[in-house]
Amino acid sequence: MYQKCCDLLNSRGVTLESLEELVFFLQGKYYNNLTQEEVRSAIESVLQKREVQNAILTGVALDLAAEEGRLADKELEQLLIDDAGLYGIDEVLAFGICNLYGSIALTSYGYVDKLKPGIVGVLNTKSEHCNTFMDDIAGAIAACAASKVAHNKQNDEPV
Amino acid sequence: MYQKCCDLLNSRGVTLESLEELVFFLQGKYYNNLTQEEVRSAIESVLQKREVQNAILTGVALDLAAEEGRLADKELEQLLIDDAGLYGIDEVLAFGICNLYGSIALTSYGYVDKLKPGIVGVLNTKSEHCNTFMDDIAGAIAACAASKVAHNKQNDEPV
Amino acid sequence: MYQKCCDLLNSRGVTLESLEELVFFLQGKYYNNLTQEEVRSAIESVLQKREVQNAILTGVALDLAAEEGRLADKELEQLLIDDAGLYGIDEVLAFGICNLYGSIALTSYGYVDKLKPGIVGVLNTKSEHCNTFMDDIAGAIAACAASKVAHNKQNDEPV
Amino acid sequence: MYQKCCDLLNSRGVTLESLEELVFFLQGKYYNNLTQEEVRSAIESVLQKREVQNAILTGVALDLAAEEGRLADKELEQLLIDDAGLYGIDEVLAFGICNLYGSIALTSYGYVDKLKPGIVGVLNTKSEHCNTFMDDIAGAIAACAASKVAHNKQNDEPV
Repeated sequence: MYQKCCDLLNSRGVTLESLEELVFFLQGKYYNNLTQEEVRSAIESVLQKREVQNAILTGVALDLAAEEGRLADKELEQLLIDDAGLYGIDEVLAFGICNLYGSIALTSYGYVDKLKPGIVGVLNTKSEHCNTFMDDIAGAIAACAASKVAHNKQNDEPV
Repeated sequence: MYQKCCDLLNSRGVTLESLEELVFFLQGKYYNNLTQEEVRSAIESVLQKREVQNAILTGVALDLAAEEGRLADKELEQLLIDDAGLYGIDEVLAFGICNLYGSIALTSYGYVDKLKPGIVGVLNTKSEHCNTFMDDIAGAIAACAASKVAHNKQNDEPV
Repeated sequence: MYQKCCDLLNSRGVTLESLEELVFFLQGKYYNNLTQEEVRSAIESVLQKREVQNAILTGVALDLAAEEGRLADKELEQLLIDDAGLYGIDEVLAFGICNLYGSIALTSYGYVDKLKPGIVGVLNTKSEHCNTFMDDIAGAIAACAASKVAHNKQNDEPV
Repeated sequence: MYQKCCDLLNSRGVTLESLEELVFFLQGKYYNNLTQEEVRSAIESVLQKREVQNAILTGVALDLAAEEGRLADKELEQLLIDDAGLYGIDEVLAFGICNLYGSIALTSYGYVDKLKPGIVGVLNTKSEHCNTFMDDIAGAIAACAASKVAHNKQNDEPV
């Protein structure tokens, strides 16, 4: 399932490298000795979590169904295609992931959601694809990995 | 949109009466002067909320797509059809609704989710329909209405 | 810090045995081969988590301050002593813990909060002690351990 | 209780004007016709909510007790005085408020928590006062008001 989720993310433009970039964006300023290995390992651990995998499967299924016109409810389809400002179920799914990783994950996700750095900004740009769920899920995965990095780092050093 | 959501709920077996029954189950023991009008009015107010409406549209879309074999991802489809114990996105959506109505809504939803009274139990019984999201959404709507009733009642009386 | 939290819980009447009893109450019906070792190990792992420890420290501090009349704000003190129905910060703290352990933890906590089995019921009974936060924290710890048990059990068997 | 909460906020340096500034920071870029009246009215409505008031009372009580050396647990006292990075109960309380106002409140709070504009930055600066809870609560109140403004504005126009 881990590999399947990586493949699904890739198929929507979200590579492990693009997630690493987000984690460095979030934590690089606090830890200038942060290595790519630490970041990669945190991301992989997040992607192993079953509830994260379920969120990826479900979010991509909704994005794809909207994109391909397969949703029975055309009003919902339009909300997803427009990434409508008051449709917040994509954020609800993202918070569902972030909650598992504590406060740092939640605030980091909020920050990424507003600033839209890197791949989040790319996904959020209008295109032939519907990425209403994917941009939030990518941001949430990076935010969870950022929280994991922060906890690891602070346990390393005597706090 | 309010009427559309009522119709959608009805089409999945969730009537306003079945929701009222859940609210009485949750609050009847605390307020024995609770009237059907108060309960109905609380439910209607919950169903007017945009984020609740979005959750209904999205949850029903996923249930229907699974039921009719229209999900591209057959592994996800099977998770939904089985209402798999470790698939928790349906609860995530339900919590997203309950969060808007505070602590009483959240604990009431947890209670309903375990005991499965009334329509929640009916929906949770294996049938030709997939109600993986619907049973949680019905429980969440009733839990929110229960919270609203409790707050209304306690503001009525000098606390 | 782990030992300090156990001691704090003990000093408020919450033993590891009383938490085990709650976890059996929550999961015993699903897994009749559940052992005390599995349950104890899940509880210990929850109590090792820093955010859980912080919630215990903070909740006990508020209960104690109210009990001993040391809160500057006497209106807040009364809310805590009365465990007022519309004061929901104790539940907010409990949800903060449960969120870390996913959907099963959240619904289990809601269930325990309504039924008040075992030590939760004891703490909730009026006494010379203020346990407004403690009953919710005890319920939340057990709910998190119950979620951990469910995930462990289902990973054991081919799902 | 509304007036008491305003007074409490004031006594910790958080004026209605400083909250207005935060809301303009969050929503001004989206609505350039946003008026001070709309913002003030949204803030006042948030401050009328009982769960928000309870969070203010509780957070200020903890900040004050730490500041004045009145916490029995000196380890917790030090965590609060240091606003320790891995102590997340202040954020848990803030999320408890934001959850009531939906996705926009949650992401706005995360954004404010990272950027620390206006009064949030002032409170976060080391001083003789302990504002571990207050900076998060001020950010959360503004984030909720920002969400309310966004919903009001979008209902004004045909969505």
